[in-house]
Amino acid sequence: MPLSYHRLTVHQNILAHMYFANVPSAKEVHFLPGNNTQSSEYRIEADTFGELRVPADKYYGAQTVRSTMNFKIGGPSERMPIQVIKAFGILKRAAAEVNKDYGLDPRLADAIIQAADEVAAGKLDDHFPLVVWQTGSGTQSNMNVNEVISNRAIEILGGKLGSKDPVHPNDHVNKSQSSNDTFPTAMHIAAAKEVHEVLLPGLQHLHDALQAKAVEFKDIIKIGRTHTQDAVPLSLGQEFSGYVQQVKYSMERVRSAMPRVYELAAGGTAVGTGLNTRIGFAEKVAATVASLTGLPFVTAPNKFEALAAHDALVELSGALNTVAVSMMKIANDIRFLGSGPRSGLGELCLPENEPGSSIMPGKVNPTQCEAMTMVAAQVMGNNVAVTIGGSNGHFELNVFKPMMIKNVLNSARLLGDASVSFTDNCVVGIEANIDRINKLMNESLMLVTALNPHIGYDKAAKIAKTAHKEGGNLKETAIKLGYLTAEEFDAWVKPHEMLGPK
Amino acid sequence: MPLSYHRLTVHQNILAHMYFANVPSAKEVHFLPGNNTQSSEYRIEADTFGELRVPADKYYGAQTVRSTMNFKIGGPSERMPIQVIKAFGILKRAAAEVNKDYGLDPRLADAIIQAADEVAAGKLDDHFPLVVWQTGSGTQSNMNVNEVISNRAIEILGGKLGSKDPVHPNDHVNKSQSSNDTFPTAMHIAAAKEVHEVLLPGLQHLHDALQAKAVEFKDIIKIGRTHTQDAVPLSLGQEFSGYVQQVKYSMERVRSAMPRVYELAAGGTAVGTGLNTRIGFAEKVAATVASLTGLPFVTAPNKFEALAAHDALVELSGALNTVAVSMMKIANDIRFLGSGPRSGLGELCLPENEPGSSIMPGKVNPTQCEAMTMVAAQVMGNNVAVTIGGSNGHFELNVFKPMMIKNVLNSARLLGDASVSFTDNCVVGIEANIDRINKLMNESLMLVTALNPHIGYDKAAKIAKTAHKEGGNLKETAIKLGYLTAEEFDAWVKPHEMLGPK
Amino acid sequence: MPLSYHRLTVHQNILAHMYFANVPSAKEVHFLPGNNTQSSEYRIEADTFGELRVPADKYYGAQTVRSTMNFKIGGPSERMPIQVIKAFGILKRAAAEVNKDYGLDPRLADAIIQAADEVAAGKLDDHFPLVVWQTGSGTQSNMNVNEVISNRAIEILGGKLGSKDPVHPNDHVNKSQSSNDTFPTAMHIAAAKEVHEVLLPGLQHLHDALQAKAVEFKDIIKIGRTHTQDAVPLSLGQEFSGYVQQVKYSMERVRSAMPRVYELAAGGTAVGTGLNTRIGFAEKVAATVASLTGLPFVTAPNKFEALAAHDALVELSGALNTVAVSMMKIANDIRFLGSGPRSGLGELCLPENEPGSSIMPGKVNPTQCEAMTMVAAQVMGNNVAVTIGGSNGHFELNVFKPMMIKNVLNSARLLGDASVSFTDNCVVGIEANIDRINKLMNESLMLVTALNPHIGYDKAAKIAKTAHKEGGNLKETAIKLGYLTAEEFDAWVKPHEMLGPK
Amino acid sequence: MPLSYHRLTVHQNILAHMYFANVPSAKEVHFLPGNNTQSSEYRIEADTFGELRVPADKYYGAQTVRSTMNFKIGGPSERMPIQVIKAFGILKRAAAEVNKDYGLDPRLADAIIQAADEVAAGKLDDHFPLVVWQTGSGTQSNMNVNEVISNRAIEILGGKLGSKDPVHPNDHVNKSQSSNDTFPTAMHIAAAKEVHEVLLPGLQHLHDALQAKAVEFKDIIKIGRTHTQDAVPLSLGQEFSGYVQQVKYSMERVRSAMPRVYELAAGGTAVGTGLNTRIGFAEKVAATVASLTGLPFVTAPNKFEALAAHDALVELSGALNTVAVSMMKIANDIRFLGSGPRSGLGELCLPENEPGSSIMPGKVNPTQCEAMTMVAAQVMGNNVAVTIGGSNGHFELNVFKPMMIKNVLNSARLLGDASVSFTDNCVVGIEANIDRINKLMNESLMLVTALNPHIGYDKAAKIAKTAHKEGGNLKETAIKLGYLTAEEFDAWVKPHEMLGPK
Repeated sequence: MPLSYHRLTVHQNILAHMYFANVPSAKEVHFLPGNNTQSSEYRIEADTFGELRVPADKYYGAQTVRSTMNFKIGGPSERMPIQVIKAFGILKRAAAEVNKDYGLDPRLADAIIQAADEVAAGKLDDHFPLVVWQTGSGTQSNMNVNEVISNRAIEILGGKLGSKDPVHPNDHVNKSQSSNDTFPTAMHIAAAKEVHEVLLPGLQHLHDALQAKAVEFKDIIKIGRTHTQDAVPLSLGQEFSGYVQQVKYSMERVRSAMPRVYELAAGGTAVGTGLNTRIGFAEKVAATVASLTGLPFVTAPNKFEALAAHDALVELSGALNTVAVSMMKIANDIRFLGSGPRSGLGELCLPENEPGSSIMPGKVNPTQCEAMTMVAAQVMGNNVAVTIGGSNGHFELNVFKPMMIKNVLNSARLLGDASVSFTDNCVVGIEANIDRINKLMNESLMLVTALNPHIGYDKAAKIAKTAHKEGGNLKETAIKLGYLTAEEFDAWVKPHEMLGPK
Repeated sequence: MPLSYHRLTVHQNILAHMYFANVPSAKEVHFLPGNNTQSSEYRIEADTFGELRVPADKYYGAQTVRSTMNFKIGGPSERMPIQVIKAFGILKRAAAEVNKDYGLDPRLADAIIQAADEVAAGKLDDHFPLVVWQTGSGTQSNMNVNEVISNRAIEILGGKLGSKDPVHPNDHVNKSQSSNDTFPTAMHIAAAKEVHEVLLPGLQHLHDALQAKAVEFKDIIKIGRTHTQDAVPLSLGQEFSGYVQQVKYSMERVRSAMPRVYELAAGGTAVGTGLNTRIGFAEKVAATVASLTGLPFVTAPNKFEALAAHDALVELSGALNTVAVSMMKIANDIRFLGSGPRSGLGELCLPENEPGSSIMPGKVNPTQCEAMTMVAAQVMGNNVAVTIGGSNGHFELNVFKPMMIKNVLNSARLLGDASVSFTDNCVVGIEANIDRINKLMNESLMLVTALNPHIGYDKAAKIAKTAHKEGGNLKETAIKLGYLTAEEFDAWVKPHEMLGPK
Repeated sequence: MPLSYHRLTVHQNILAHMYFANVPSAKEVHFLPGNNTQSSEYRIEADTFGELRVPADKYYGAQTVRSTMNFKIGGPSERMPIQVIKAFGILKRAAAEVNKDYGLDPRLADAIIQAADEVAAGKLDDHFPLVVWQTGSGTQSNMNVNEVISNRAIEILGGKLGSKDPVHPNDHVNKSQSSNDTFPTAMHIAAAKEVHEVLLPGLQHLHDALQAKAVEFKDIIKIGRTHTQDAVPLSLGQEFSGYVQQVKYSMERVRSAMPRVYELAAGGTAVGTGLNTRIGFAEKVAATVASLTGLPFVTAPNKFEALAAHDALVELSGALNTVAVSMMKIANDIRFLGSGPRSGLGELCLPENEPGSSIMPGKVNPTQCEAMTMVAAQVMGNNVAVTIGGSNGHFELNVFKPMMIKNVLNSARLLGDASVSFTDNCVVGIEANIDRINKLMNESLMLVTALNPHIGYDKAAKIAKTAHKEGGNLKETAIKLGYLTAEEFDAWVKPHEMLGPK
Repeated sequence: MPLSYHRLTVHQNILAHMYFANVPSAKEVHFLPGNNTQSSEYRIEADTFGELRVPADKYYGAQTVRSTMNFKIGGPSERMPIQVIKAFGILKRAAAEVNKDYGLDPRLADAIIQAADEVAAGKLDDHFPLVVWQTGSGTQSNMNVNEVISNRAIEILGGKLGSKDPVHPNDHVNKSQSSNDTFPTAMHIAAAKEVHEVLLPGLQHLHDALQAKAVEFKDIIKIGRTHTQDAVPLSLGQEFSGYVQQVKYSMERVRSAMPRVYELAAGGTAVGTGLNTRIGFAEKVAATVASLTGLPFVTAPNKFEALAAHDALVELSGALNTVAVSMMKIANDIRFLGSGPRSGLGELCLPENEPGSSIMPGKVNPTQCEAMTMVAAQVMGNNVAVTIGGSNGHFELNVFKPMMIKNVLNSARLLGDASVSFTDNCVVGIEANIDRINKLMNESLMLVTALNPHIGYDKAAKIAKTAHKEGGNLKETAIKLGYLTAEEFDAWVKPHEMLGPK
């Protein structure tokens, strides 16, 4: 049973505050003063730079504390995404299993596995205080994980926290690993899981709802709009089928980027050579991660590329960017088609979810569209950040790793969540305003196109221009001009026959 | 003394989790079931859409709860930046003061002012659970603020939470206001404060440290590098003076964007006309905010522009983007100049802040440079998100407001914090590796340029090319070729005379 | 009289084609074969890498030809912007004047001045074939300019093209200069001129036209739209006044970026030290350029920053990006307000400039809006390119110079030209569709807001909700509900009194 | 034999100038004055807006001239990419073939086919003067193509230019088509061809050269660098293998985006319904285009999506963006590894292609790397422009088409051309500076890692730290400290055994 992390002492609150508030005295607090009277709240841990106080109820160690002191950038909302931490849990468990195969003491390996599982399950989330804005290799978060698993495994085995005995964070938890290959591995695991658990289900959910609407609306004929101007008709179902196709392709685009995300760097260690690993380690770790996650992870065919570049995440981000483009289009259309209630296009009635205004009753704001389009803009910006980070790797290591994965995960999560929210709170409740749709279509001058084969383009144009000038409708104008009879008009102008090739 | 918000019940934890975890049953929990057995933990509040359960220990009301139900996007790290909430506190206080002048019951006004001050002071931060990804006008956060202030003011006046009596969230707290003008006002207040409290002090701090280094290094002559290749010499102080200039201009750029950020939309109400306000209200609110913040806020000369566009924030974001460009250059240079310890350029010794590697002793990683360059990439991405949001306003209202301000604040905070971290943990500790600098400069073939006036370009070129081909140094080669004597070489080739015009 | 450059021989056409078509044999053609039978069409020039054939009717020399051989990237549309070449003409003239003051042979100086003036006047445009995608310092374009001026000056003085006598491209034309300071100087001159000659006049033109419309439309009361939904009214003039303000601020933003663009790097030579220049040279050159252009150029206070970073252009690009954001908003509004003719919002009638469709008469496409919004998107993309280039300078030199200035000039030109086109072909001809505007406003439920003070919010809401539900109008509904008389309604609901504070 | 377009009269030059120079009198020149004395240089053509003068030696007609009058934006370098025009040639030929099958007069069809082939072959390039910044549907370029093909076909058939008889631009050339489906079709054809003809061959060329270097360098052991700092060794071949992998994946990424680019919109006509086409037309046109191009084009499964969104191009642009990221990394590494000649890393010797400086002999500038990195930055910017354009479609039509395809084609071309230039002028000539590489590796302290298994981490660390502090080498220090013998050191520290797992 893990140490309780729910109870927060006043002192710890102050500490937490100090990490992020640039309180000048933060450093001193951590360093060992001569009088150590509060031994119950702290323990002493050391790294190669010396000793530091560590909160007694935290599993992390000296290197984690040191990072909180050196990187007071952005505050708690800028913490390393918890998905990366959980992915590390999976990786550390897999590595421990493989290390056990290669000779690691089974007692230690099993304790590491148990602790790593707790990390993966999110049971130790409060023990990962580091921000994204640390070293660009994510080394400090890897050490954070190593320290937490080491101390938790020590606890499981009845040892003393901080003793590094019998489970050493480097020698045992990080065995056959380096930050340089583990962090990219955790990036890929986290990205793939977010894609499969949040993004793709969200998009599928949206797809199905739009598809249902496309079917529901298949017989409603409406005016088309090109250049935002009146054009020839189509069915509302056809209009929605375009959105369905966009979401369908969104999923295809994301999936087509995944093969390279499934490649794991684990086994490359420091520069990609695999120094200090055993032959087969890389392949076995990838297979174990695949088994644990149910996703088709494989070992990266070239570890040098896998450490020095994160093109696979840039590619995935590009797919997310394209998804965002689709979402912007769909949400924009829906809010404009639903604009009104009196003075907009008014073809759709969107669900009313909350009061729109304290003074304007009946005002429905397309708030779900707004959330979606804001998400889309954010994802497009994230993509630029990922692009810039991805392009600035040097030699054997790209050191924009935490920033890159933060943005990729953010994009995937926001698009997935927003898809669900947009679906449940908007799409499923959309209704066609059939009276309005009919009125706009019947008034449209563009139906004149149907007369071309019967009276010729020139007379048809004359009808349309006259009607436009005089504000009349097509039928009356046509009859008044003497080009045809009312019966002929009704026989020839049939919007429902204008919806496809002949 | 405000109601305690530290004590979290298990139930509330579950609730908080449900807001962000897409738990399907979340909606039902909020809606009133027939049996209301847990009356001590909830109270009932209503908006025009009906009644909802509100956690008993929270000041917010029905509209806030409704937003948490309708926008489960991104989770807690995606909450509306607390700076926006605090800015709302300032604005609501200012509006209450002015409303009091115009006739609002002083007893109510004073309670609103007290509650708004608590919001501005950050005492009620836990009462603002809404995420950025809500309605694009920020209406729900404005209502969140109105509800919290209303309930807290009711509490101050001895009333019953949720009764809207004697302080109504709309009629009193939001008096003469609309979300459409208050949210942009809070955006500008928050941005201006972040710039003045975090960004500019951070940049000044960095500027001063770099300036000190430029002075310290003024007599160290080193090889210049253009196209990453060896070039004619300059002093290390001159090199650093370029960085100083970049940071100096960074501050100027940010300052030159501020005049339009100081313009406040307050008084424009729903579409910019100022409907339902009194003549003078806008000016007085701006003056009061200016007084409260010590920043030169004024009322926006055109409220239509101030609601429908946020070009001022796009402009500010563009300035932050330029700052990021400067930071990327400086941090890149410093890590390359400090590369090594044996096989890099090695001209600078950077402070060692943490263990660089578990297997490679002596490895100093330029981690502060890495954090800074990651921040720079993020800011560049944020700028694109702000740009896209800014460009997509329609008619009388831009509805990308929460996304835009989130990104602007994030950029300002990250740049400010990173500047301090980079300064304190890197710049101030930079030392020149003088032996290395001298060695590189003395080996340089580019010093041959100094011989041009004495022996002519052709002979000088012959010396340089011969030395390059044979790997010799300039002096020996020149003597061997018989072009000059050792004494002449020493007299003519003086790097310290190559540092400026004559 | 300059050598004719209109006459193109077949051979030259082939040559021009080969530069850009990756014809494998291109190199051989330039190198000297044994048999030189076509002496009338070529001359031989040399640089330090050897001899090359140069087209007989071109002023450029060996280094230019060599660049065309080594950089076959993108073809003619990717040539160095002619504005940069013209700016070089101004700079070379200024440098020659100052060099003459410092002792350069007046006969040579005067010939250089005459040739440089021809470059500045655009008389020699065909002699600058190099593409942007060359060395990142722009050295090859600087040499292209030096070669052209040298040969043209030689011609003026009766010498032999390619002889470098009596005017040497390096020793005389490039005297006291380096590519590293001249190219940035030309960048700033070109950018400042484009801003003053194309961009600002274009924006002013647009501003004035919008301002005239704001005045023309000041008494037309229309429905406002927030969240794309119906809102309280404003005047069409007020709506346009927001656009006016955006364009006014666009100009301010651009102007506020100019002080740092007016700073010239000239005098910094190779790394910023000013090696090989005379004291005062930098200041005199800047003053001369200022005099020649009528723009307030000054010498850059720190030449190291001026060579190693181009933050000033990133800043200017950021201003252009903000202008693009404004343009996107304005053009989007106008096309949506002008959408129709029957089934859109239809409040504005836009000029009909060209046939919209071969089958749909009466179709007016808002093509000028479309050109403008495409330009806006391009400028936003250009800004990212400039940002990335600006951030990737190293040590004493940024080597993304040609790319950066290409994008800045492109943005300025497109925005300036599009502003004029949009103004002349759209804005000046916009007419208000008053019948439609009145109809939409009178049907609006939002006017109910005016009843609040008279019958209270609850009854007003009841009226609005009933009217919305039943599709009735406010007045009839209010009377039917018995809340007021027709006379009272007419007395209280006056849209023209809802346009400002009271 | 097409009309000659090589001969340019002075008058035409003036005209061309006027189109793009905003000469105020441009409009008047085109409109018909009373006296038409210059009949030999003009002919009169008409569209539905009236008559216009058309240059006598041009095949285009009234709508093209009108566009040049209405869109004076950017000048000749901003013309519609010629690849789009050629793609239109292919499409128009295919449509004519299919129309012939469906009953179009074979004589007309054959003339159209012949004329369209000339367009596709680039024989009529001078007849397409329109700029990108026109209507966002590209309608005017579609009409430009229709007019040119119509007039050229009329000429073939012995008719009178401008008569529209016997080949009408709309009724015959544009039969069963609309701008709304033809322009997207031409976009996809042009993009796919550029990818296959320029980009992929360029990348393959680069891939092969890097692969050859990876093999050539496989036995050269060098120091690795992470965080730009010294790290454990790898082979130079391994380092290059990472680049090879990046380029290999670049090609895979581009290919994986192509399936959706191969989908053609043709057959969707005005809004996607296929109104005025015959069943089977869409499929036959796609098959014909596939046959003509040898690329696997198919008809788009959903034409609504294909007109209203261009997500396929956003996706392709995202792939190009990822390629650019890879190129930036590779080019950056190569220039840094080749930095020097004395004071840089100096591990690679890059080919010397041109004089680097007039005063610094031996200076090699990595100019090909610079061109490549500038291209990369441009492509990243282009991607943002494409993204913004793609996201702003409305209803049945995206109207950012010309801008989007311009940027996609530009990115593909620049990356392809730059890959070839970079390969031929840099990569193939790269040599390893083996002395330097050995020296740096042997001095490295990181080799100490090999001692860990023999003397333990602590003693190894002591050796490294002592050597770092004293500036000694590892072997001497190790012996001096008494930890091992010279023989042991030589036996244990073998860099060539540190290159992989064991």
